Amino acid sequence: MHIAFLGLGGMGQPMALNLLKAGYALTVWNRSPEPAQALAEQGATVAATPADIAPASVLITILADDIATEQVVVGLGALAALPRGAIWINMATVSVAFTEEMEKRAREKGIAYIAAPVLGRVDVAAAGNLNILTAGEATLLDKVQEIFDVLGQKTWRFGERPAQAATVKLAANFMLASAIEAMGEASALVEAYDVAKGDFLGMLTSTLFAAPAYKNYGAMIAEDRYSPAGFTMKLGLKDVRLAQQAAESKNVPMGIAGVLRDNYLDALAHGDEKLDWAALATVSARRSGQS
Amino acid sequence: MHIAFLGLGGMGQPMALNLLKAGYALTVWNRSPEPAQALAEQGATVAATPADIAPASVLITILADDIATEQVVVGLGALAALPRGAIWINMATVSVAFTEEMEKRAREKGIAYIAAPVLGRVDVAAAGNLNILTAGEATLLDKVQEIFDVLGQKTWRFGERPAQAATVKLAANFMLASAIEAMGEASALVEAYDVAKGDFLGMLTSTLFAAPAYKNYGAMIAEDRYSPAGFTMKLGLKDVRLAQQAAESKNVPMGIAGVLRDNYLDALAHGDEKLDWAALATVSARRSGQS
Amino acid sequence: MHIAFLGLGGMGQPMALNLLKAGYALTVWNRSPEPAQALAEQGATVAATPADIAPASVLITILADDIATEQVVVGLGALAALPRGAIWINMATVSVAFTEEMEKRAREKGIAYIAAPVLGRVDVAAAGNLNILTAGEATLLDKVQEIFDVLGQKTWRFGERPAQAATVKLAANFMLASAIEAMGEASALVEAYDVAKGDFLGMLTSTLFAAPAYKNYGAMIAEDRYSPAGFTMKLGLKDVRLAQQAAESKNVPMGIAGVLRDNYLDALAHGDEKLDWAALATVSARRSGQS
Amino acid sequence: MHIAFLGLGGMGQPMALNLLKAGYALTVWNRSPEPAQALAEQGATVAATPADIAPASVLITILADDIATEQVVVGLGALAALPRGAIWINMATVSVAFTEEMEKRAREKGIAYIAAPVLGRVDVAAAGNLNILTAGEATLLDKVQEIFDVLGQKTWRFGERPAQAATVKLAANFMLASAIEAMGEASALVEAYDVAKGDFLGMLTSTLFAAPAYKNYGAMIAEDRYSPAGFTMKLGLKDVRLAQQAAESKNVPMGIAGVLRDNYLDALAHGDEKLDWAALATVSARRSGQS
Repeated sequence: MHIAFLGLGGMGQPMALNLLKAGYALTVWNRSPEPAQALAEQGATVAATPADIAPASVLITILADDIATEQVVVGLGALAALPRGAIWINMATVSVAFTEEMEKRAREKGIAYIAAPVLGRVDVAAAGNLNILTAGEATLLDKVQEIFDVLGQKTWRFGERPAQAATVKLAANFMLASAIEAMGEASALVEAYDVAKGDFLGMLTSTLFAAPAYKNYGAMIAEDRYSPAGFTMKLGLKDVRLAQQAAESKNVPMGIAGVLRDNYLDALAHGDEKLDWAALATVSARRSGQS
Repeated sequence: MHIAFLGLGGMGQPMALNLLKAGYALTVWNRSPEPAQALAEQGATVAATPADIAPASVLITILADDIATEQVVVGLGALAALPRGAIWINMATVSVAFTEEMEKRAREKGIAYIAAPVLGRVDVAAAGNLNILTAGEATLLDKVQEIFDVLGQKTWRFGERPAQAATVKLAANFMLASAIEAMGEASALVEAYDVAKGDFLGMLTSTLFAAPAYKNYGAMIAEDRYSPAGFTMKLGLKDVRLAQQAAESKNVPMGIAGVLRDNYLDALAHGDEKLDWAALATVSARRSGQS
Repeated sequence: MHIAFLGLGGMGQPMALNLLKAGYALTVWNRSPEPAQALAEQGATVAATPADIAPASVLITILADDIATEQVVVGLGALAALPRGAIWINMATVSVAFTEEMEKRAREKGIAYIAAPVLGRVDVAAAGNLNILTAGEATLLDKVQEIFDVLGQKTWRFGERPAQAATVKLAANFMLASAIEAMGEASALVEAYDVAKGDFLGMLTSTLFAAPAYKNYGAMIAEDRYSPAGFTMKLGLKDVRLAQQAAESKNVPMGIAGVLRDNYLDALAHGDEKLDWAALATVSARRSGQS
Repeated sequence: MHIAFLGLGGMGQPMALNLLKAGYALTVWNRSPEPAQALAEQGATVAATPADIAPASVLITILADDIATEQVVVGLGALAALPRGAIWINMATVSVAFTEEMEKRAREKGIAYIAAPVLGRVDVAAAGNLNILTAGEATLLDKVQEIFDVLGQKTWRFGERPAQAATVKLAANFMLASAIEAMGEASALVEAYDVAKGDFLGMLTSTLFAAPAYKNYGAMIAEDRYSPAGFTMKLGLKDVRLAQQAAESKNVPMGIAGVLRDNYLDALAHGDEKLDWAALATVSARRSGQS
């Protein structure tokens, strides 16, 4: 199986490297050339453009967003370069509407589309421990399962329509943002009574909320440590907006999503767009006059 | 140390039993007499009224709410029956304002007040594994630590003012309700794309949200299993309201709390007041036309 | 008809004066004595305490809030001083629960209770042009209609239960606060595109929103003129809270009320409690980084 | 001045007719041909396609939305058919981003773009009494003022950038939706206390809220009269979304907008998309169990 891998950012590079190490023939491309060179040293072929990916029959992309994905895959020719019967696996977090549109475009060219966004940050990707959230035809998922086994600790299947995995990923990010916001509001409340938020969050994340998401973001909030950003405020707002769009298409009201949106905007209006998205918690502190 | 224990509900009875087993002299009272009789068989003295608690020098109460606590402790004479220098430990979830008022009343009679609400449901109480959230003067907390060691797996201290522990408890319940609401909204979103909410929640609570709160409530939501109630919708709304009141006293806006309040009211307006408070998730389903 | 009039604040004094001018025998009382003296010069009898109001058979109160009303009418003896068959007209904005409680207390003493809060500020009260929102037994309302005719331009009847008029008044104040908030949000939006909010609000209040409420508050927002306060931020928050309490008793979710509450708290946390409640509009400006 | 007028819907047809009556040479086009024929009988020239509009030097469009406008003006060739130096006046409610894009496209072809959305429904358009909300270069606005004088009772200028008028129009529609929602919530509150919402709204719209917007929508809500729709729920949601998008571009949180969005979605999920957008008030009634 020859794989083309486009998008060698923080997540893509270690994922591609894991595929190389597992013995796959890999053709790689990235907008800025450095990450591709590093992989070339490990045996990858570097494509001059996204169109130069023959003889790959599997295309993996993990690009920044809808627009970047469309530019690279459609605009710069990757999709056109694939043979009929090939499989495109999109592992990025993109909108549900875009997912549906790309699936249609691919199908028109005889190419199957799988949505497979991931949970996990850079270190998890490097360790091959991602959780992979997939949707697509079962026989296709079976065919590429070996790839997911290299990249992740577990592959989850959510249905036959790629939009389903895209939705699950946005719903998961919504859950994370909700957890951050709840910690922010609760922290503002306890701080108003002179309880250190670190004491409060430390207790919670050792008991009822002893989960990775809470421990990770709880510690950042407790220490007011929002940079360097693992995932920026600006991206946090983007994903909330994508969840709202997916919800709007199906007439699903989401009250917390509205709160998240407003508070992300408040933070951006105060110049915090490059902080980690856990800095959402600073909005509750500022609004209550604590900072 | 002779302890008076008032309030033998689902939580109070196993807690009192644990104190008896640990060898404490215990005088107990409950509005309905049966639970007291059961403890009498284990060696407790049953008080005819809350005023008949001499020679106790420590009073533990865990009554339904502010009103019940005031009636029993103030109205029915428990506070007046304590000697100067006694300690009142209130382990119920009550309002911050009531906590401040009771502390003042107790102080006027030369009695120290400790707030020590707990995290954990009935089975946890029975196992002596509660998390105990305390606030009060450090020397007093030291004095009764042996009691907390019997009742809980860990005692957390949040400051010298009882209001601080009362606030932490309300903030923790707010976090739980927020988690339930977020799961409800996200479930409505994924269900709209024909992803079974159980698949979505199962994935989340095995990964990012692998915490007791999420596993417990996530399973209830996945199975639409809201009765028998561990904690009712009506009580859920009450605690959200108490958190809002505590927040309002200190000018802390809490956007999610407003969403929770409205959705609890929606559920109550639809006759669901006796369901478990995880049934908050049904509101998102109903609003989006899924039920 | 001999009338006792308690509460001679900004609204009460001109109202009492209008009654005097209309020929009523009036016994007045106020916590601070100056306003009562001024009325004495116009022929009013000044009561030494709220209990000294005989031979009045009609009691009118317009006191600051629930607590002040209870202290004066119950605590200081006005209610006890009324003869059986007397009528108590409460013209203040108080909570629905308090209204129900006072009606019950009055009934137990053989005294009828009428709720008659008003719309209109000080100048409107002085001109006898208030809108009077009443509820109570129809025969009682008939009996005191002549009084309302002196005080207001129009009397509105909303039912036989005093709680109904109390609710209508809180709902009206909620509508005003909602209008202010909507103007605040819309102003922040247009200002973000460099449209002067005064141009925007000027257009609206000359067209679709050419109503007293919008013209009055729109001009204040356009000019950032929030002091002296006609009605303070603190009172604005109080009335929103009372509307929420009334709604909660009947399971009515009110989404805008939640937004109002949070934004009033934000303003109070920023030291604006003494500004006019139209300063709610400053919160949208601050949150969007415009001030 | 020869005018091309594209879009002869409920608003466009009477507006075009007024221009004809005022003596302008008019070339008209509409997707469905009937409205154009009716105007032809009054002297208008009917264009076979949007590209057949020579010798017009002014193009007026009032089409359904962004997409319809782009299709007709760009896709079907109207813009290309205009001579350099021509003026395009867009009188529809479209998004701010689309306005900015169309202005740029027009400028590239040497054509000036004016945004001039209107306030007023069909009967107001027919009477030539619209309020016209304009933005564009002052000299251009001067040039076409005579046209606005025919169509409206008053022309408002909000700046030199077309996006400014587009924003003002969205902000005005947001204000209307906010007024409807506030009436809906307040009506649910008073109805919960057995006050007829018609009594409540009748009082308000005769006093503080005696404005066209409140009288019109208040009567519809009082009578539960939501069809035929003057402006549908679906369009109401669309305009709220466009206001949110405009706000998001500039980091403006709008709390009420979030409430509106969720309640429109709730209504759509319950099958009410074709009702008048005042039916937003039914959501508060349903949520509180009143319907």
